Amino acid sequence: MLKIEKIAIVGVGLIGGSVALRLKQADAVGEVIGVGRSSASLNEAMGLGVIDRALDLTEAAALADCILIATPVRQMPEIFSAIAPHLREHALVMDAGSTKQDVVAAARLQLGTKISQFVPAHPIAGREISGVAAADALLFENKKVVLTPLTENSPALVATAAALWRACGAQVSTMSAESHDAIFAAVSHLPHMLAFALVDEFAARPNAKTLFSFAASGFRDFTRIAGSSPEMWRDIALNNRAALLAEMDAYLIKAAQLRALIARADAPQLEALMQRSHDAKALWLAGELDHFRDESV
Amino acid sequence: MLKIEKIAIVGVGLIGGSVALRLKQADAVGEVIGVGRSSASLNEAMGLGVIDRALDLTEAAALADCILIATPVRQMPEIFSAIAPHLREHALVMDAGSTKQDVVAAARLQLGTKISQFVPAHPIAGREISGVAAADALLFENKKVVLTPLTENSPALVATAAALWRACGAQVSTMSAESHDAIFAAVSHLPHMLAFALVDEFAARPNAKTLFSFAASGFRDFTRIAGSSPEMWRDIALNNRAALLAEMDAYLIKAAQLRALIARADAPQLEALMQRSHDAKALWLAGELDHFRDESV
Repeated sequence: MLKIEKIAIVGVGLIGGSVALRLKQADAVGEVIGVGRSSASLNEAMGLGVIDRALDLTEAAALADCILIATPVRQMPEIFSAIAPHLREHALVMDAGSTKQDVVAAARLQLGTKISQFVPAHPIAGREISGVAAADALLFENKKVVLTPLTENSPALVATAAALWRACGAQVSTMSAESHDAIFAAVSHLPHMLAFALVDEFAARPNAKTLFSFAASGFRDFTRIAGSSPEMWRDIALNNRAALLAEMDAYLIKAAQLRALIARADAPQLEALMQRSHDAKALWLAGELDHFRDESV
Repeated sequence: MLKIEKIAIVGVGLIGGSVALRLKQADAVGEVIGVGRSSASLNEAMGLGVIDRALDLTEAAALADCILIATPVRQMPEIFSAIAPHLREHALVMDAGSTKQDVVAAARLQLGTKISQFVPAHPIAGREISGVAAADALLFENKKVVLTPLTENSPALVATAAALWRACGAQVSTMSAESHDAIFAAVSHLPHMLAFALVDEFAARPNAKTLFSFAASGFRDFTRIAGSSPEMWRDIALNNRAALLAEMDAYLIKAAQLRALIARADAPQLEALMQRSHDAKALWLAGELDHFRDESV
């Protein structure tokens, strides 16, 4: 049974706040210390019962058994640098960023010999809303959390990290940071880019009003992720640039192939492509993943 | 108050069945005659109370005051040809196809001098499910229906067509078939192609199982429309080929521009694009369409 005496949540927003709420509900934490740049949002978090008190980053680092950094990834190098001299010897440090190789590189640089205390984590539970008011103890229920442990991590520390996310209701997977970034470039970062591009394309048209007035539920769902935070997604795109560019290139080739089928009115091949896609979608929704290819790449 | 003595529904599936159910509920129709290729599905429609009786196409055409052709677009030329000799003098003929210029061309060719009786219609109310069992009297409630009237149509006939769809709960717009096809190539047909391409791209990968196992709600919504009928969408893509190719080209240019921003790590421009997209999405969802450009094109 996981019990963390003091957890410091750095960045008390949707993710950090939801972890705090769930761990409190599960009685898996003694005290939740909030750290943030805005005293207004820390007061809000206190008022919502998400955190027990607010402290400065270095004070919190000196007290905490576990430090969860749930800020935009761009702020993490500075946070690693600030906490490094103050970390307790056995404290667990985790992030919750959507990209991993960049965070690991920053952690190595800033934490130095304390890098063994850092277990990189990515909870797959985004929403278009943000802020502590959106925090939800059930946010991670049956969602996936990916850990990308370092060779320096002790098995015990990785087990504690996994136990924390399981206490939040999540299913924990582990893989390398490189695999993580390649997989999420495909299934998450690429679709976000494609959705942003589509909405911006239409918004720039002279007849944008007409287009949007006839856009219906298919367009709404296709572009839901274009409502995501521009600041956060700018960082994800740039921090996972190499993998994302590879995915964009592969997709643009695929889209050009589909265009060619339409241009030459190749009805059989066009229907075959759509049927494969239709069937894959149905299998995925049904959870029938064993029908898909599973070769190492 | 609309009252149609006898309506013939050719193709009693989701769309045709939903029209029948709603018109019956609204007491806007005397008798619903079903026409279809499969006696099993006609029996099902009868059992569900969607149609009152089933007849052959030519028998139905000779009796009906209104004929709604709700089949895949590809079958329409043959249907127009079959009904032409049998149409009652004042009967209204409508289709419910997702493309309009191709249907109008087929109608002109097959209906000859009776073309004035044909009012092209496109109800914007797709679902991924099909078949009469999915028919729903509320399918068109507050949805848009686009009519693309012909110069040969009398104002009275167009008014009857509009009244029928309003009786189904829909908001009726009119425009040219050319405008219709250009608009829906953008807001509907293009996103469908992009979603089909993405799912097929991942399904073909050696690590497809891993990709699909980490795909989450963003991917699910982005690709929902990839679950649509391959047969129907093959036809839409080919029947609206010119407009769709123009949209695919515009989109591929836009996506390549976004790729270039990422490749050169242009954080300000990247964030600006995402912010424009984010804001446009929010305005659209809020129904604030007056913020968008509205210039004739």
